[in-house]
Amino acid sequence: MDAAEFRRRGREMVDYVADYLENIEQRPVYPDLEPGYLRSLIPSEAPLEPESYEDVMKDVERVIMPGITHWHSPYFFAYFPAASSYPAMLADMLCGAIGCIGFSWAASPACTELETVMLDWLGKMLQLPECFIAGTDGHGGGVIQGTASEATLISLLAARCKAIRRVQATNPEISEAEVLSKLVAYTSEQAHSSVERAALIGGVMMRKVPTDKTYAVGGHMLKQMVEEDKAAGFIPFYVTKHSGIECVCLFQFCATLGTTPSCAFDHTTELGPICNDENMWMHIDAAYAGSAFICPEFRPLLNGIEFADSFNFNPHKWLLVNFDCSAMWVKKRTDIIGAFKMEPLYLKHENQESEFESLVRADKRFEICAEVIMGLVCFRLKGSNELNQNLLKKITKSQEIHLVPCQLSGRFVLRFAICARTTESRHIQQAWRHITQLTFELLQEPSH
Amino acid sequence: MDAAEFRRRGREMVDYVADYLENIEQRPVYPDLEPGYLRSLIPSEAPLEPESYEDVMKDVERVIMPGITHWHSPYFFAYFPAASSYPAMLADMLCGAIGCIGFSWAASPACTELETVMLDWLGKMLQLPECFIAGTDGHGGGVIQGTASEATLISLLAARCKAIRRVQATNPEISEAEVLSKLVAYTSEQAHSSVERAALIGGVMMRKVPTDKTYAVGGHMLKQMVEEDKAAGFIPFYVTKHSGIECVCLFQFCATLGTTPSCAFDHTTELGPICNDENMWMHIDAAYAGSAFICPEFRPLLNGIEFADSFNFNPHKWLLVNFDCSAMWVKKRTDIIGAFKMEPLYLKHENQESEFESLVRADKRFEICAEVIMGLVCFRLKGSNELNQNLLKKITKSQEIHLVPCQLSGRFVLRFAICARTTESRHIQQAWRHITQLTFELLQEPSH
Repeated sequence: MDAAEFRRRGREMVDYVADYLENIEQRPVYPDLEPGYLRSLIPSEAPLEPESYEDVMKDVERVIMPGITHWHSPYFFAYFPAASSYPAMLADMLCGAIGCIGFSWAASPACTELETVMLDWLGKMLQLPECFIAGTDGHGGGVIQGTASEATLISLLAARCKAIRRVQATNPEISEAEVLSKLVAYTSEQAHSSVERAALIGGVMMRKVPTDKTYAVGGHMLKQMVEEDKAAGFIPFYVTKHSGIECVCLFQFCATLGTTPSCAFDHTTELGPICNDENMWMHIDAAYAGSAFICPEFRPLLNGIEFADSFNFNPHKWLLVNFDCSAMWVKKRTDIIGAFKMEPLYLKHENQESEFESLVRADKRFEICAEVIMGLVCFRLKGSNELNQNLLKKITKSQEIHLVPCQLSGRFVLRFAICARTTESRHIQQAWRHITQLTFELLQEPSH
Repeated sequence: MDAAEFRRRGREMVDYVADYLENIEQRPVYPDLEPGYLRSLIPSEAPLEPESYEDVMKDVERVIMPGITHWHSPYFFAYFPAASSYPAMLADMLCGAIGCIGFSWAASPACTELETVMLDWLGKMLQLPECFIAGTDGHGGGVIQGTASEATLISLLAARCKAIRRVQATNPEISEAEVLSKLVAYTSEQAHSSVERAALIGGVMMRKVPTDKTYAVGGHMLKQMVEEDKAAGFIPFYVTKHSGIECVCLFQFCATLGTTPSCAFDHTTELGPICNDENMWMHIDAAYAGSAFICPEFRPLLNGIEFADSFNFNPHKWLLVNFDCSAMWVKKRTDIIGAFKMEPLYLKHENQESEFESLVRADKRFEICAEVIMGLVCFRLKGSNELNQNLLKKITKSQEIHLVPCQLSGRFVLRFAICARTTESRHIQQAWRHITQLTFELLQEPSH
């Protein structure tokens, strides 16, 4: 499919999408099918010959649509809302075209920066305490996760790391495994299953705090359980809280504001001081209810947020952002970064083709550093690591091509990876001319 | 934005995307910016008044594009390729419109079934051993993860769970924490940082196996380390393998076929028998190289796959599927399912608005089961759980509206959640008429 056909098919797809959403009310909201329906409708192996675009689109109606639960039908009252809007779909089209993977600032600066600044905007709309806002010199800030389950897991792992380091700081003779076996996290018996699963993944014990008759957790019950566990030699560290919020504790508590079963709100203003006194991480999960806190009449439900270490809610539920987008804030960014930090060289700023390999081998100033099997060539200038670092600096500064390095047997090596679908022989030839020109300049400099 | 405007803006966006990709070669591949560039270009708080669509699109060129690293430029030779194609973008538009969240079969049957059948197609293209194919009665099968890092983490957690259960089956007096502290996973010193991070998250020790002069791991080195660790009282359980593959071991080994730094291939046919003999889970990560194994000339690099418990590669690298799509296969689905299984009632097949609440309260046959604060009403027929289960069955069978249940204080309760952006008062009124009609029919039945 070339650009011209994409322009045509893209217009048709825009109309298909608009037609689908304008007429969704006419489709049965829930499919009437037995498990396994789809396998019999299509071949058991991928076809060897291509099918026409028209036939593929016919299969969408014949094979896919009969098996869809229509989440955007006005007769869908199940689970929780998944937001969707036309502007969000346009934005997704643009993101798909840019198609960058923002795993570091350098991998696409706009990704990291826009995320940070937009989470500040959103945090201010929720009137989060100043300590959760990144600004230009804050210690806190926001980050986008895929789902609330991921936000809960990340907060639990950060709390676990912090608790282990704290215990080992005063008792260096205790092993990490030993500390781990003593940690207890708490959450409401009404919390989402993902909170319990986070504890399972993190390998820590999780206790469920009984709720009152409104299905919310109050301070009294948590206090009592924590006292019992401490007396038995355990280390509370994490709490999750519900109120449309779920909260975790290692010596953590995960509270929920708006539980999944009944949208109950845990009593954060009672729970928060207990967590702070006991040095327990408090995570507040308001996956569903969070969007409502932008409204002054609902904002009081978020009172107590000042005691929390982390907080999240899902714009993909009520804020017209298509799945997936869970916004998460922490008071101290270093708590999260410190728990996961690893810096392999290819991510500090990282690169085959026999064609490029032969160009490198033909130039005696260079050497190939690893066997070339697929689309990646590892090469370097014969000489010091510093010389190769300087060459990469020149390449980056010139902005014509983009490479990143790696480390092999203690040596600084350049990685040349064939990446774009549109890279042709001429681009590779030109890249090599560019690299050799910069090498010539570099070797002329008096220091070399 | 209504459907008519979406049709117009959608066409414009299709053209913007096609123009961007046709002319990407003219843009500098790597941005020339200092960290923090974006914050000064936009207001510090969200605007209170809307901006025109034209102004938003101008901001894309003014604010976003200068900060983009253009991954699809033919001059991009960094990291690894991120696939992108016009057909994949069209498919993403359609998925965005359907916007269903496929966390269970019932949440949208087509999602689960299409995924299973397509992973069978792909597995057959790779000539995976039959035990990795789901078919209609296989024990293995494929599942889509977001990234190879997730696939590695999931295989490590499944291996950990299996190892703990095996040790406890013969030694029930040993606590889970104690087993955990004795587990050792192995991977290549050249494996991706995400393998080490998976061990960090899972709270298990990971040892790095030295590579040979081609940067690959051979059987001899692994065997020696495992023997040493067993002699010291540890329990090897997981191995990851590289060859464009990464492999893990608890008593796991993670092998890599095509390492990130240099695309080295671990010696799977040597490592596999060691893992099988030692009862270690072997995970093979071929994130980058996997797509090439479809070609007969590269397929020999995958030999040894028959010894693996799990395998993954990223179609979003070379198969023209936009990010994110990492395909993962396991020999025994129960190993993965068993490690994470939780079945809260709202996911077994899971609902507010004062409007709907008042309708329920006005009917004395019904009761409200939890305080209604936001868009969720929990209600039930006064009477047995069985009666309410039967009512929900009738509602599901009728296909007019879609609800799921929850459990509150041991009682089976129906959840009515306002979900769709387009749900109006008339839809709610009609849903209630429908529920009361089915209730009337139910209460007429002789059994009640």
